Amino acid sequence: MAEHSFSVENTLSQLLEQKKYHSLRDILSTMNPADVAAVFDEMAQGQLPLLFRLLPKELAAETFVEMEPEAQELLIRGFSDSELKEVIDELYVDDAVDIVEEMPANVVQRILAQAEPEMRKQINEILRYPEDSAGSIMTTEYVSLRPNMTVEEAILRIRRTGIDKETIYTCYVTHGRKLIGMVTVKDLLLCADDEATIESIMEEHVITVGTLDDQEQVAQMFTKYNFLALPVVDTENRLVGIVTFDDAMDVMEDETTEDMEKMAAMLPSEHPYMRSSPFEIWKNRIPWLLLLMVSATLTGLVITSFENALGALPCLTAFIPMLMDTGGNSGSQACVTIIRGISLDEIEFRDIFKVIWKEIRVAVMAGVVLAVACFGKIMLVDHLLLGSESVSWMVALVVSVSLALTVCIAKLVGSTLPLLAKRIGFDPAVMASPIITTIVDFLSLLVYFTFASTILGI
Amino acid sequence: MAEHSFSVENTLSQLLEQKKYHSLRDILSTMNPADVAAVFDEMAQGQLPLLFRLLPKELAAETFVEMEPEAQELLIRGFSDSELKEVIDELYVDDAVDIVEEMPANVVQRILAQAEPEMRKQINEILRYPEDSAGSIMTTEYVSLRPNMTVEEAILRIRRTGIDKETIYTCYVTHGRKLIGMVTVKDLLLCADDEATIESIMEEHVITVGTLDDQEQVAQMFTKYNFLALPVVDTENRLVGIVTFDDAMDVMEDETTEDMEKMAAMLPSEHPYMRSSPFEIWKNRIPWLLLLMVSATLTGLVITSFENALGALPCLTAFIPMLMDTGGNSGSQACVTIIRGISLDEIEFRDIFKVIWKEIRVAVMAGVVLAVACFGKIMLVDHLLLGSESVSWMVALVVSVSLALTVCIAKLVGSTLPLLAKRIGFDPAVMASPIITTIVDFLSLLVYFTFASTILGI
Repeated sequence: MAEHSFSVENTLSQLLEQKKYHSLRDILSTMNPADVAAVFDEMAQGQLPLLFRLLPKELAAETFVEMEPEAQELLIRGFSDSELKEVIDELYVDDAVDIVEEMPANVVQRILAQAEPEMRKQINEILRYPEDSAGSIMTTEYVSLRPNMTVEEAILRIRRTGIDKETIYTCYVTHGRKLIGMVTVKDLLLCADDEATIESIMEEHVITVGTLDDQEQVAQMFTKYNFLALPVVDTENRLVGIVTFDDAMDVMEDETTEDMEKMAAMLPSEHPYMRSSPFEIWKNRIPWLLLLMVSATLTGLVITSFENALGALPCLTAFIPMLMDTGGNSGSQACVTIIRGISLDEIEFRDIFKVIWKEIRVAVMAGVVLAVACFGKIMLVDHLLLGSESVSWMVALVVSVSLALTVCIAKLVGSTLPLLAKRIGFDPAVMASPIITTIVDFLSLLVYFTFASTILGI
Repeated sequence: MAEHSFSVENTLSQLLEQKKYHSLRDILSTMNPADVAAVFDEMAQGQLPLLFRLLPKELAAETFVEMEPEAQELLIRGFSDSELKEVIDELYVDDAVDIVEEMPANVVQRILAQAEPEMRKQINEILRYPEDSAGSIMTTEYVSLRPNMTVEEAILRIRRTGIDKETIYTCYVTHGRKLIGMVTVKDLLLCADDEATIESIMEEHVITVGTLDDQEQVAQMFTKYNFLALPVVDTENRLVGIVTFDDAMDVMEDETTEDMEKMAAMLPSEHPYMRSSPFEIWKNRIPWLLLLMVSATLTGLVITSFENALGALPCLTAFIPMLMDTGGNSGSQACVTIIRGISLDEIEFRDIFKVIWKEIRVAVMAGVVLAVACFGKIMLVDHLLLGSESVSWMVALVVSVSLALTVCIAKLVGSTLPLLAKRIGFDPAVMASPIITTIVDFLSLLVYFTFASTILGI
C-alpha cells in the first residue's frame, strides 16, 4: 500500500497545479477514507484545504476523522463556520470526542459552538469520563428497542433512526433506561415471525462493561467474545453508551505499543514516533536509563570486591560480557513470555508454581547445553587457538558452571518477578528485560566470582 | 472474570456430583460460549463429556469452537458418530478448518467423514492454502448478491440464506464469479427505495486481498479501514471467500506475540506457554542463546586485548557492567520504538535520515545527562564515600565520556538496524534488544578502553 500511496500523492499534486479539479474529485471519490487521509497527511499544507473541499460531503467527514491532529487543526482553522458545521454534523459522537481531545482550547470552543445542542451535550458527557475508561471510548449513538415491540416494528425503527448510529447491527433492549437484553439485526432478519416480540427473541444474558472499567480490559473482551459492540452501563445497569469493535482494535494496538515501551524501559509515549519531538522522546527514555545506570553500580561493587581475585587471574574479566549477556537474554526470554501470557489472560498468579517448575526444567536443559558449548569453545578457541595459558580447563569449568547457574537464576527471576508484580498490583510489563538484566547481572557475577575464588583458590 | 470463573467451576463440579442436571443446564445456558469453554478447559477430563452433553445444541457447537484442542480431541473421541455430526453441522467452515488443523490424522478422518459433502469440499479447499495466508484464515460462507437484484430481493435472499453465513452484514456483488461490488445490510435497510437495484447502490471500489497475501497484512487492513469483513479474491478477481474481523483480531494477537518473542530472541511458539512442554520451550529459546553467547566472545576479546591497561588500573573493570547495561538499555529503547513503528506502518525505510537525525538529538541530550550523573556519582560514591584512591577525577571523566559515546552509538545502531533489516527483506523484530546489545557491548568497550588507554596513558 505504501508504495502505491506514494505515486498517488504525486499525481494529485500535479493535477492540483494543473487545476484539473474534476479529475481530482473523480480519483478521490474512488478511494477509501483511510487512504485519502494517509495521502492528505503527506501533502503540502498549502494544498490541503483546497483538496479537502473537493471531497464529496460524506467522504470529507470520514476522511477528516482519519487524519492526523495537526492536519485536522490546520483544516479547522481554515474552515468557515458553515464548513465546520457541515463536517461536525457528519461525525459520530465518539469521533468528535477524539478530535476535541487533541485540539487546543480555542479550536475546541469553535467546534462545540458549531455542534448541534444534543451533540454538544453528548460530547461533554463523554469528556467527563476518566482517560482510559470504557466511558471515554464509548459512543452514545446506538439503537435501542423496547421489549414489547414486534420484529417488524423493530426493523422499521432501525430503518428510520439508523442513519445516525455508528452500528445498527447490535441493538439494545431497554426498559426505563435499564438494559434488559440485546438482539442483533441478524436475529431480526432471520426471525421467521414478523409479529414475534423483541422480548421473546432477545438474548437476556448480556455481557456489559462499566463506565469506569479499564479500556484495556474492554478491548480484551472483544477478542475473547468476538463482539461487534459492547454495552456500557452505569452502576445501576442503565445503558449509557456502547463501545464498537473498531475502537477496541485501536485500544488493543495502543496498549500493545505501551506494553512494548514499558518492556524496553520507556515511559508510554503520547504521540507516534515520527510526530514526537526529540525532547518528548528523551523525556520518556531518560528516567529509566538514569535509574538503571545507578543500579548497575551494584554490579560494579561485586567486581570491586573481587579485585584481588581478578588481579591474580586477569583472564577472568574477559568472560564477564558473555556471562552478563547470556544471563540477560535468558531472563528476557522468560519474562517476555510470562508478561505476554499475563496480558493475554493465559497465565495467572495461581500458576506461579507450575511456571517455576516449567522454567526450572527449561533452565536446566538450556544451562547444560550452553555450559557444554561454552566449555568446548573456551578450550578450543581461548586455550588451543589463542594459546592463552592462563585459561586452563579449571577456568573453563568455573566459567561454564557459572554460566549454567546464571541461566537458572535468570529464568527464575525472569519468570517470577512479572507474576509477583501483577500480584501486588504493579504492571507486569515494567518487570521486563532491563530490570531483570540488572538483577541477573548482579547475581551472576556474584556467583561467578565466589565460585572462581573458591575453586581456583585465589 | 478469572476470579469469577473459578467459583463457577466449583459450583458446576458440585452440582454434577449431586446429579442436578436441570440446574446445571440452566446455569450453562446463561453463559457466553467463550466463558463456558474457559470453565470446561479447567474441569476434570472425566466430567467433560457429561457436561458438554447438557448444553443446548447451538451453545454446544459455539462452546466447542472456543475450547482448547486437547479438550476438543477428548470430546470428539468420546462422541458417537451422530453426536459428532451434530456438532460439525453447526460449525462455520473456517472454525471447522481451525479444529481440523489441530487434530491428529485419525480424528481428522472422522470429522471429514461426518461433515456434509459440501462442507468437506470447502474444508479441503481452505486447507490447501499455505499457513499464514489470507486463504488459510478465510471462510467460504458469505452472502453474494447479483447486481440486477432489487433491494427488496436482496433482503429476502439474506433472510433465506443468512442462517449459515458467518456474517450477513457485508454482502458481495458478483457477476460470473467476479467480484464487482459490495453492499452492507445497513445500506440495504436504510435505502429508501425498495425497488432500487443493487448495482445502483453498491460500492464499486472494493478493497480486496489475494488468497496468498500474508495474514498479518490482512489483519492490519482491518485496523486501518475498520472493516467487518474483507473479500479474498484469486488472481482473476474471482471471489473465493471472506475474512471476518474476529479472525483478524486473533491474527493480530498472534502476530504481536510472535513479534515480542522475536524481540526477546526466541523462535515463535506454536502453543500458548501453559500448554507447551519444557522441551518445546527450550527448543525455541536455545538457538539464539547459543548464537549470542558465541558472539559475546568478541566483547571478551576486546577486554583481553586491553588486559595490560586493566592490570595497570584494575578499577576500570568495575565500570564495565554499567557501560554495558546502559548501552544495552539505550539501544533497546531505540530499536523497540522503531520496530513497533515499522509494524504499525508509521515508519518506513525512506524515513531513515529523519530517524537518524532525531535519534542523534535524543542521544546527545540523554548522553549529556547520563554522563553528568555518572561523573557526579563516581566522584561522590566511589571517590569520596568508598575512598577508592585509584578512582581519580580523570577516571571519572573517561568513564563518563565513554558512557555518553556509548549512548550515542547505541541509539544509532538501535534505530538504523531494524530499518536496514526491513530494507533487505528481513523481519525487523529480529534486530531487537539481544542483537543490538551484543553489538553495542562490543563497540562501547572498544571506545572505553581505547579512550582510557589514550587519556590515562596506560
